[in-house]
Amino acid sequence: MNEKQSIVKGFRAASVAAGIKKGGGPDLALIVSDQEASAAGVFTTNKVKAAPVILSQEHLRRGRARAIVANAGNANACTGRAGYLAAKQTAEMVARELGIETQEILVSSTGVIGAALDVDLISRAVPELVKNLSPGGLREAVQAIMTTDSFPKMAQAEGVACGKTYKIMGLAKGAGMIMPDMATMLCFVLTDLAIEGGLLRKALSSAVNKTLNRITVDGDTSTNDTALILANGTAGNGDLSPSDFEGFEKQLTGVLGELAAMIVKDGEGATKVVTIQIKGALSKEDADKAARTVANSTLVKTAFYGQDPNWGRIMAALGRSAIEIKEELTSIWMDDVKIVHHGVGVGMLGEKEAAEIMKNTQFRVTVDLGLGNYEETLLTCDLTHEYVSINAHYRT
Amino acid sequence: MNEKQSIVKGFRAASVAAGIKKGGGPDLALIVSDQEASAAGVFTTNKVKAAPVILSQEHLRRGRARAIVANAGNANACTGRAGYLAAKQTAEMVARELGIETQEILVSSTGVIGAALDVDLISRAVPELVKNLSPGGLREAVQAIMTTDSFPKMAQAEGVACGKTYKIMGLAKGAGMIMPDMATMLCFVLTDLAIEGGLLRKALSSAVNKTLNRITVDGDTSTNDTALILANGTAGNGDLSPSDFEGFEKQLTGVLGELAAMIVKDGEGATKVVTIQIKGALSKEDADKAARTVANSTLVKTAFYGQDPNWGRIMAALGRSAIEIKEELTSIWMDDVKIVHHGVGVGMLGEKEAAEIMKNTQFRVTVDLGLGNYEETLLTCDLTHEYVSINAHYRT
Repeated sequence: MNEKQSIVKGFRAASVAAGIKKGGGPDLALIVSDQEASAAGVFTTNKVKAAPVILSQEHLRRGRARAIVANAGNANACTGRAGYLAAKQTAEMVARELGIETQEILVSSTGVIGAALDVDLISRAVPELVKNLSPGGLREAVQAIMTTDSFPKMAQAEGVACGKTYKIMGLAKGAGMIMPDMATMLCFVLTDLAIEGGLLRKALSSAVNKTLNRITVDGDTSTNDTALILANGTAGNGDLSPSDFEGFEKQLTGVLGELAAMIVKDGEGATKVVTIQIKGALSKEDADKAARTVANSTLVKTAFYGQDPNWGRIMAALGRSAIEIKEELTSIWMDDVKIVHHGVGVGMLGEKEAAEIMKNTQFRVTVDLGLGNYEETLLTCDLTHEYVSINAHYRT
Repeated sequence: MNEKQSIVKGFRAASVAAGIKKGGGPDLALIVSDQEASAAGVFTTNKVKAAPVILSQEHLRRGRARAIVANAGNANACTGRAGYLAAKQTAEMVARELGIETQEILVSSTGVIGAALDVDLISRAVPELVKNLSPGGLREAVQAIMTTDSFPKMAQAEGVACGKTYKIMGLAKGAGMIMPDMATMLCFVLTDLAIEGGLLRKALSSAVNKTLNRITVDGDTSTNDTALILANGTAGNGDLSPSDFEGFEKQLTGVLGELAAMIVKDGEGATKVVTIQIKGALSKEDADKAARTVANSTLVKTAFYGQDPNWGRIMAALGRSAIEIKEELTSIWMDDVKIVHHGVGVGMLGEKEAAEIMKNTQFRVTVDLGLGNYEETLLTCDLTHEYVSINAHYRT
């Protein structure tokens, strides 16, 4: 996002260093809509849900909200009743300072699981946080929710509905504990489109399923995954026609797709983004299972890192993925270079070409199972020394 | 195994450097029973099965065999029809040299997947291999089937049946691509017990399920997993009583358990062996699923490596493991130190004690789900820089 791109109309944002994140720096972000907005959310499928996830789900029941407050440095997960109260108090303090209802506040947290969230730190920081709110504060807000992220993730799009131009702006954090259903991340989307809460929920679910739920870094699904969208209607459009809605859904999918790709690119220690495409499956479920098993195999991911077209590991992953597979019908490509034809390697020449392709920072593995007409695609990254370094000593 | 421990009566073994393994060294092993033996096998559940797995399954149909020939350096998997013929020719050449039937030969391979197995290399090596056979050759045989293993794995036990003492000797290879159902490994067991093929199969299945199927290094299941047992009856016992059979099963489980622990200890790059014990589950299946998800989580495994009692990652893994779980009933221990009580951390003091425990090369993580009476245990290891180094450049 370059500097001339401004925030979406009617939204302000800010950040502050509240002292939650180890090592200091901004760690508390606030995004506020000037007027009440339609709101929707998609949350982690992990059965262990962080307190802010539970609270935000409650607050979203009406399909309306005004603000999102998010902290980094502490996930407020596995913190019991005290954790729930800490999330609620956070919402209350922000609501009081903004002069709005507690129910209009959505809360998100990311960071270490299991440590108590110190509400006093938040209490002391909220007045300054609210004072800092400005239409240009979004870039600071996204930086405040970074944990192991190495760069801030923002994407935007524009559309037209009922003759009115609207904007969509998405921001996200996430680099590890990333696994579809859904990626471990916080993702906040703002739009000035006027859209009813039910439709907004539908558009968000559809877009998340095609984007944030189709990436994996390490197969670990977090307790805090959250995607939120606020639509404040300041674009001034009227009721959406079916094609307006389709257009919005498409633009939203584009924004989330860009963010999803950024998350994988920033995968902890990752040096390569790899698209896993499974074709010719007997069912959509089989294609998805196969893609996930290949994308999460530590042996496949270390081979990506080593730039080694060790397709035997891909075959072994397919074979254990609990799908229908016939070895003698299966073919594999690296980008457009075929390395396996009907279950058998094509030989050293093809592998050499494939090894060249794997030197790139992005490439595609295509598997044709040769059984049916279903396909599915997933984004993953390689498994590196740096991933181990980052995660062996995350808390220390 | 110390030097005075001799091979089981009526078996001879040998190894030779056939030139299959990159970098040279012994890579072809042969184990022969002087007389026909009862035989049974348990094989990979991967749907992509190596040629030697398919051939050995065919040869085992009669429940009898005389010899096992095994090579390292080439898995002979994903090699199509040519690979099957290569496995068959290997059996034929060994049978001819030994003067026995091809059907009496079991074949195993381990190494790179997808490369053609050069039968000429084997053909040239078989005469010397057979000539080298000796009662003391087992130690050389196990060394010839090592790939990334850092030490040879052998275990033994003794029992009494019908007043006759019998021996069980097990040998195994395996360090990576290790995941229950079953561990990626070759495991050969020899006994001089007289036992009928059906009973032998029953004892082997039972023992494998309690041992080799309860370990994981990286969650990857190989195309070549094989556990074979030959029982040649030279102990001279009569028909087994139920308690004789039970005794044998127990001794066999002990031998396979020792080998399983050695495989995890030798897990690629591993510095720690960790027992994951799940208690209080609603069903055996839930306990197993939970144990496997925790044991294979790259975030949990890197935390083991970092000696960090980051129990939030254990909770997150439990939460995504698709089992019944109530956060507020879940407790977690490192050895005997409780670090989570009813879903909430016990605080820094307990975690400091737990961090001390994690400095050991072996420790236990116990999770009590507090829901039911089922439990399950799994052995895993940590995920280290060395694992990435080994697997990024395995073929190069």
